[in-house]
Amino acid sequence: MDPIILAVIAGVLGLAFAAFLVIYVLRQEQGSPRIREISAAIKEGAMAFLRREYQILAIFVVVVAIILGLIPHLGWWVSLSFVFGALCSGIAGFIGMNMAIRANGRTAAAVQKSLNQGLRVSFRSGAVMGICVVGIGILGLSILYFAFHGSVDFLKIIPGFGFGASLIAIFARVGGGIYTKAADTGADLVGKVEKGIPEDDPRNAAVIADFVGDNVGDVAGMGADLFESYVDSIIATMALATVAVMAGLATETTAWYLPMMIAAGGIIASIIGAFLVRVGEKPEMGALLNALRRGTFSASILTAGFAALAIYFLGASWGILWAVFAGLIAGMLIGESTNYFTSYNFGPTRRISEASQTGAGTTITRGFANGLMSTLPPIIFVVIAILVAHHFAGFYGIAIAGIGMLSTLGITLATDAYGPVADNAGGIVEMSGLPPEIRERTDALDSLGNTTAATGKGFAIGAAALTSLALMLAYTQAVGIVDITQISLLHPGVVAGLFLGALMPAIFCSLTLNAVGRTSFAIINEVRRQFREIKGLWEGEARPEYGKCVDICTKAALREMIVPGLMTVAAPIIVGFVLGKFALAGFLIGATATGFLIAIMMANAGGSWDNAKKWIERGNYGGKGSDAHKAAVVGDMVGDPFKDTSGPSLNIMIKLMSIIALVLAPVLINVTGIFG
Amino acid sequence: MDPIILAVIAGVLGLAFAAFLVIYVLRQEQGSPRIREISAAIKEGAMAFLRREYQILAIFVVVVAIILGLIPHLGWWVSLSFVFGALCSGIAGFIGMNMAIRANGRTAAAVQKSLNQGLRVSFRSGAVMGICVVGIGILGLSILYFAFHGSVDFLKIIPGFGFGASLIAIFARVGGGIYTKAADTGADLVGKVEKGIPEDDPRNAAVIADFVGDNVGDVAGMGADLFESYVDSIIATMALATVAVMAGLATETTAWYLPMMIAAGGIIASIIGAFLVRVGEKPEMGALLNALRRGTFSASILTAGFAALAIYFLGASWGILWAVFAGLIAGMLIGESTNYFTSYNFGPTRRISEASQTGAGTTITRGFANGLMSTLPPIIFVVIAILVAHHFAGFYGIAIAGIGMLSTLGITLATDAYGPVADNAGGIVEMSGLPPEIRERTDALDSLGNTTAATGKGFAIGAAALTSLALMLAYTQAVGIVDITQISLLHPGVVAGLFLGALMPAIFCSLTLNAVGRTSFAIINEVRRQFREIKGLWEGEARPEYGKCVDICTKAALREMIVPGLMTVAAPIIVGFVLGKFALAGFLIGATATGFLIAIMMANAGGSWDNAKKWIERGNYGGKGSDAHKAAVVGDMVGDPFKDTSGPSLNIMIKLMSIIALVLAPVLINVTGIFG
Repeated sequence: MDPIILAVIAGVLGLAFAAFLVIYVLRQEQGSPRIREISAAIKEGAMAFLRREYQILAIFVVVVAIILGLIPHLGWWVSLSFVFGALCSGIAGFIGMNMAIRANGRTAAAVQKSLNQGLRVSFRSGAVMGICVVGIGILGLSILYFAFHGSVDFLKIIPGFGFGASLIAIFARVGGGIYTKAADTGADLVGKVEKGIPEDDPRNAAVIADFVGDNVGDVAGMGADLFESYVDSIIATMALATVAVMAGLATETTAWYLPMMIAAGGIIASIIGAFLVRVGEKPEMGALLNALRRGTFSASILTAGFAALAIYFLGASWGILWAVFAGLIAGMLIGESTNYFTSYNFGPTRRISEASQTGAGTTITRGFANGLMSTLPPIIFVVIAILVAHHFAGFYGIAIAGIGMLSTLGITLATDAYGPVADNAGGIVEMSGLPPEIRERTDALDSLGNTTAATGKGFAIGAAALTSLALMLAYTQAVGIVDITQISLLHPGVVAGLFLGALMPAIFCSLTLNAVGRTSFAIINEVRRQFREIKGLWEGEARPEYGKCVDICTKAALREMIVPGLMTVAAPIIVGFVLGKFALAGFLIGATATGFLIAIMMANAGGSWDNAKKWIERGNYGGKGSDAHKAAVVGDMVGDPFKDTSGPSLNIMIKLMSIIALVLAPVLINVTGIFG
Repeated sequence: MDPIILAVIAGVLGLAFAAFLVIYVLRQEQGSPRIREISAAIKEGAMAFLRREYQILAIFVVVVAIILGLIPHLGWWVSLSFVFGALCSGIAGFIGMNMAIRANGRTAAAVQKSLNQGLRVSFRSGAVMGICVVGIGILGLSILYFAFHGSVDFLKIIPGFGFGASLIAIFARVGGGIYTKAADTGADLVGKVEKGIPEDDPRNAAVIADFVGDNVGDVAGMGADLFESYVDSIIATMALATVAVMAGLATETTAWYLPMMIAAGGIIASIIGAFLVRVGEKPEMGALLNALRRGTFSASILTAGFAALAIYFLGASWGILWAVFAGLIAGMLIGESTNYFTSYNFGPTRRISEASQTGAGTTITRGFANGLMSTLPPIIFVVIAILVAHHFAGFYGIAIAGIGMLSTLGITLATDAYGPVADNAGGIVEMSGLPPEIRERTDALDSLGNTTAATGKGFAIGAAALTSLALMLAYTQAVGIVDITQISLLHPGVVAGLFLGALMPAIFCSLTLNAVGRTSFAIINEVRRQFREIKGLWEGEARPEYGKCVDICTKAALREMIVPGLMTVAAPIIVGFVLGKFALAGFLIGATATGFLIAIMMANAGGSWDNAKKWIERGNYGGKGSDAHKAAVVGDMVGDPFKDTSGPSLNIMIKLMSIIALVLAPVLINVTGIFG
């Protein structure tokens, strides 16, 4: 029996489990007519955005597919694989978002019964996306395997799938990220800062756009993002199969099987882990957090066990298991360090709250310094993982470590994706005028989601660095760099490429930050206009025109995602064809190094500003409404696009550039750039 | 005749010119008793700081010197050279600061006569430091040359001088930077933000500390910084002499002469350029700026001419001249791009002012995005300079390009160093209760200084990147990396080193930002305490205890400079001995890439926040006191440590790590780390 059958079984089991969860969630009560009305508005806005986004992306995909098909050394199978990858990514995002927009209102209804019931509905809806992402990913790759593994072009065709997934991911993450943060900061600036009304107040015209943003950015965008991480890490490992053979670690087919088997084991482990997320009927947050941790931790242990079994039965070198361990452990440690730097239970975030006493300036400086410092542990852990993995299993091991880190994605993504659902449920509770104690419950759920989301973000970034590095290594093999002096640091093209690569994440962040700024500026003016022009709005007698803000966000996000996305696609192509294939290797490593660094800095600075504000809101340094709180709100506003737009997009960016290099390797091998 | 005699002549001429300027400045009137009193307080505080700083540094220097002397492959001559470098750097900073603290009050007196007289006094005092830095630098290196050029250890001994200069520079820049920005933001936060009193109001207890900070940070710190850049660029070129011989560009002695000759030509060119900085008696700022530009531009042209002469008479390859051009032109273009991104005459800074209308959050985001985008032109220009220089003159050419960029330092540093003098003069005018039109004149001088300082900072960063790269290349030669596959991107140690190197600037910035934050927090509390406890202070009937704030800043700055400084020294040693010499090469290039990127980002973000505030103060978006202005003040406060503490220190940091690697090369060549 072909072992990949096991991967298919795991994928099918995953989707079956997801279907079971879908049925559970859909059976829940939809709540009062007011809740249904709000849910319908969110659904309408989110689906309209996704539809238009997918229309634009379809054009991109078709154009790129035609180009790929026409390139002599690539051809139509690569093109097909690319379209298939884009399609799978789109489907994963679509399912996740469809679930989320249905779970929002149901969670709002469930939480009226009990906190625990609220957690159950929101967590299960998040798990749908987590499991779907990994299930669709592994099934898609299995289909490609069965279709092409006899072909000599197998290793050309497989990266096309990753390219398709990455292309969708960058646009979905950037577009969704711009949407959600522009709406969020726009709503906050007029509502909380200028007018002094609570978050999600129904009089705020941007509030529905804010809810829609949570779904298109934090759910659909994140789903596409992690789908890409997942399949890219498997593809990078497969592409390094020949290296594994040369190092005597495994036969070529075994080197292809292993990443699929480890991933398959991770899916089963995630399903089991998700079952372990249970608590009694007592609504204790500490117990809930422990339950989530128990789930992810058990999944990690099980994955390690499955990996050992796979290595044993496939007769591969035991060194590979050490690489899996290196990745798994580094991932968990990165998660813990992220938690340390962003949770208000620890010093770094509390010191930002403390600094808020002397105004917004010190809040910003402190948070920024904290973000910079927080890069230390993840980079050290990744470096150690690289060294350990390389020591035991060479370059193939580095790729395997990336898979190890991502193998429990099914459950970690579930803990991540439930956050926006809880957040939206809270907003719906507020807008429906339900009593404050209900809102307190959704706030508790939201806060739990923030903690798990921070951990999840940390390990996603670490995995991106490993995957990007593995893809770069695969590229050097595919482009036939046999004489490795060609990518020496004494090669001027490599140095030039490295400097240019280091520049890319900075430009990318600048573009996305400005896009959020411009869009939220437009939202602010619109909300202000409605307060000014709509009679009775302030008194609560008239309704604002929510649709206008939704429309502004949709148009702006779709327009603003184009340039950063295109730049990311164009840069490696230009560097490869103009400066040459060796410079491109330097370019990729430069981009990976600074992209990794800036991504962690932005994610953690943003997370700690957010929680520093929450720490003040819990009554410290004067509590809500104090000057310290006002300063902390500024920090949160700066941090929002850091942590939810620019930072997470960098993950995708560095992988997208690496996978483009890998896809184009058969062409670049014959190109003579300035530096050969 | 040994051509180095010409370098000695240039150095002596420079010092004679400086002496002439000193006499001119000292002959000026010292002003009213009140001005003298304030000047005396500044002088006292600044000298006390410098004395204590040098005492601490002396201990470091002695300890390092003993260690260097005891290391078998280095020995006492290297140790002596190191001490000599430290001494020269200390003297250059000392002279510059001594001049500045004497010129402050004299400028305040002169500006009462006319704006033009104010410019003359302040510019000439700045020129003293500019010319002293280059004069002492070239004389110091000439002395070492005559003492050791016959010795086989010449290329071991010379880097010791750079190490000494770098060690002083990092502590002076970091210590001075913490001092000046802690005092500045502390004074502003209580004075301007909380109490609503003008800048430099005599009731503010931190105001004298603020003046002292300008002198110890912006003058003494910057002098040590650029002294280091200057000598390191020459040393890096000398160390690459054997590469030049191999490439058939020049004989070994010619390859040593050339950097000294180009630098000597730059000194003469700078003196001539300084003479060209003349305007009529009409106080027109546009004319003044043009005069400064005429000076620097003429100096550049002359330097190119001198370089051509040197190449012709020494019989070296003309390719080297192209490398000089590449550096000179790239330096000027970087200066222009810095001006574009930081001056309020252009869109980027004005858009930050515009964003201030919606609060501090948008100010920060816009400015940060602007800083990120501003990294694009300098990195592109440096990459082009590297490629051109390498194409025409190999690795030696890259080092030569660094010299080309820095050769006109004498005059560019003069335009930079006069800024703090004008700034302090303005403060003294304010404190002495002189009429507002006098203050307007010093503000005009200050504003001109800001423009030229921004340009100067840009090219200093560019030069640092080239010098650091050249030092890294020299290191690889010195450590005997003959088989360049050893520093391939496919070497796991190189990749690990690269990631760790990329991390260093982030940690360094985090430490320095937090140091400023902690110290200004202490200052804020002290100023608040004095307002609360000293009777009659608010009414202007009692004087604050200025000395207390000076004392807090002095102690804190000296304490806080230790960790970042030591970390910078320790990191390359640990990487070299633990991970090995190949990993260290990766480490250096990683640190150079991110250090360059972050330094530009911080310098330009800081500069543009500062000027965005100034643009509002000129009456735009509501002018002074408006909400937009308040938001812009927050931006400026965040930007201050960015542009004057963390950002500029990174220049030194990357060069210091590279030169330590070069100094230790004779030892590391025999070390077997984890990666050989």
